[in-house]
Amino acid sequence: MTTAEEAAKLDRDDSLAGARDHFVLPDGMVYLDGNSLGALSVDVSARLAEVLAVWSRQLIGGFADAGWWDAPMRVGDRIGRLFGAAPGQTMAADSTSVQVFNALIAAARLRPRRRTLLMDTGGFPTNRYLTASAARLLGLDVREAPLEEFEAAIRAHGPDLAVVTASAVDYRTGELWDVGGLTRTAHDVGAVTVWDLSHAAGAVPLTVDQDEVDFAVGCSYKFLSGGPGAPSFAYVARRHHDRLDQPLIGWHGHAEPFAMAPDYAPAEGIRRYRISTPHVLSLLTLDTALDVFDKYDIELIRTKNRSLGEFFIACADTHLAGLGFEVVTPRDADRRGSQITLHHPDAERLLAELAERKIVGDLRPPNLLRFGFNSLYVSHEDILTAVLTMRSLTR
Amino acid sequence: MTTAEEAAKLDRDDSLAGARDHFVLPDGMVYLDGNSLGALSVDVSARLAEVLAVWSRQLIGGFADAGWWDAPMRVGDRIGRLFGAAPGQTMAADSTSVQVFNALIAAARLRPRRRTLLMDTGGFPTNRYLTASAARLLGLDVREAPLEEFEAAIRAHGPDLAVVTASAVDYRTGELWDVGGLTRTAHDVGAVTVWDLSHAAGAVPLTVDQDEVDFAVGCSYKFLSGGPGAPSFAYVARRHHDRLDQPLIGWHGHAEPFAMAPDYAPAEGIRRYRISTPHVLSLLTLDTALDVFDKYDIELIRTKNRSLGEFFIACADTHLAGLGFEVVTPRDADRRGSQITLHHPDAERLLAELAERKIVGDLRPPNLLRFGFNSLYVSHEDILTAVLTMRSLTR
Repeated sequence: MTTAEEAAKLDRDDSLAGARDHFVLPDGMVYLDGNSLGALSVDVSARLAEVLAVWSRQLIGGFADAGWWDAPMRVGDRIGRLFGAAPGQTMAADSTSVQVFNALIAAARLRPRRRTLLMDTGGFPTNRYLTASAARLLGLDVREAPLEEFEAAIRAHGPDLAVVTASAVDYRTGELWDVGGLTRTAHDVGAVTVWDLSHAAGAVPLTVDQDEVDFAVGCSYKFLSGGPGAPSFAYVARRHHDRLDQPLIGWHGHAEPFAMAPDYAPAEGIRRYRISTPHVLSLLTLDTALDVFDKYDIELIRTKNRSLGEFFIACADTHLAGLGFEVVTPRDADRRGSQITLHHPDAERLLAELAERKIVGDLRPPNLLRFGFNSLYVSHEDILTAVLTMRSLTR
Repeated sequence: MTTAEEAAKLDRDDSLAGARDHFVLPDGMVYLDGNSLGALSVDVSARLAEVLAVWSRQLIGGFADAGWWDAPMRVGDRIGRLFGAAPGQTMAADSTSVQVFNALIAAARLRPRRRTLLMDTGGFPTNRYLTASAARLLGLDVREAPLEEFEAAIRAHGPDLAVVTASAVDYRTGELWDVGGLTRTAHDVGAVTVWDLSHAAGAVPLTVDQDEVDFAVGCSYKFLSGGPGAPSFAYVARRHHDRLDQPLIGWHGHAEPFAMAPDYAPAEGIRRYRISTPHVLSLLTLDTALDVFDKYDIELIRTKNRSLGEFFIACADTHLAGLGFEVVTPRDADRRGSQITLHHPDAERLLAELAERKIVGDLRPPNLLRFGFNSLYVSHEDILTAVLTMRSLTR
């Protein structure tokens, strides 16, 4: 079941096979780093030409006439849909780091008498640094716990817990957390949640509204393929909008932006979460990249990346047995995102030699080979090629 | 001296006349809103095509191979040069609002026993909101003073003053502040300065190193013509780098970014001021927009915008006398940026009717007609056309 014939059969039956035509990818490249930077969509070039035409012809008028002003809300809604957010709660702007910081402080301010922020031990470095930074500014304490102890840690800190923050999918191992269950546990003790969906958005169909997630943030340059340094997205549940009190505020989020009032008065709804002028070129590139998600349902994307993951693990078990590899990602497809991570003592050398053969993954310390596969442009054949090449490099 | 012949003569003698060819502007438009959004540079389209080619061919490899990773430092240095910053102190990334917030807190942390932030009463709304936000997080007090009382206010608050923040050029009136003098006064009382150079960078050749400015931030989409929502720039004087302690930190500013270390350890120099992945498409568009400043010296740009301002005021005095206009901007060319602002009770109607005639300025409350002129693409003839059209609309 891990042969070229089997890969070909799985790819023939792939309902997303046509989606690859929406992307520009180098011939012969097996790109398993779409969770670092997603591939270029074919329509981006024309879209940017259009944006430049507006800039040159209408100049400042583009903000009103070409919808640049409202783009953060419009693009935000398109992204929110992919993780179960009804319109009017998601915004696309700034960077994920900035949004993480803003969300942590806004979340903590919803629980002013509580003293503790709880973060995941394996969280992305920046998130860890920013949790410490936010806690320092607010005079709060940071505690951490690994995934397997997270629920117990939430219960242990109980009434002292202001904010619980974690990544829906672990950036190193690809493990998928129980967003709904942990959010319920956090709410049981009265805490507010801030989820980082960077490695989930566009790959795993979450249900943030239904799960009553409070805040969520994430990158749009990974599975959303929004481009290098594409703006982040930020979700705030509607029930918090009226009390939203974030540290980064600006005239774009003012109730009357063009009054240029000396004092801040927030706009209604998620608009108050805006800070400043959107990075229009980067943001509208992301907008175009999202078109493919209107054509291919996120459930189909999930079905395919489960299949790719199953096939990857089966190939590793068959072809890499006894060669020093260990599958770090959970073998249960329900417990992982769109990624398989292998441990190998020669990870760095292997990844460099794979790259020479146009097979792209990335290194994460310690000695992890990380392979993220975007269902929209990665095939089962790609997976088999990657595994067989690793085999050839370790024998 | 305010005739079409005089305008033509001044334009014939203009050493920057050829610079307009570097921009794509609509035929027949008089664009006096380059201080809101600068015009598109002719080379941007080719540069973006190149960036898309790298993205499609090298994908994640673009960060190392095409210099995306280092672009914030490289582009930052190119901007810093225009306001007198030696290399290694300026970075281009994120939005001006984010950088204002980050700088205010970093600045206040250099003076931990002082209780007061002083801001300019007429400062840009977002800066005012963020000064209040930063002060709230740090438990400090905000005081404000108008330009004419600023020096006295600095001396009055004296040893209690942690941070002094103001805009080098007032966004409404175009008045140019004495950056050097006020910085010296701030230092006399032991305070740290945070200057907003949004309306100065690319128009007025400041000398921040020589003036011992501490922090500076600004927009690159105004006189730098970096594009809609282009990344901001942030300057920190080298003498502060080792003690720099800003709230927004991230893996890009870590001493060993790819170690993905759980705890923060800052990089050397201005690199530690980085937060996260740069908005590459927006940032490299800005990079290309800066090319014109390599061809035309900032001193020449300043000489021309002084001339444009003189001519504007002379035209207003001659052609708008008795029609309800008042020149709000200082008549002394040394005391203004690259902008003339008029007050008129019908400002809103006038600007709308000017826009119908392809003459673009913008409205700022209360009843101000704001005209910013970029020396690189605005002529004396444009100024005369704008003034004569205003005359025709008020008679």
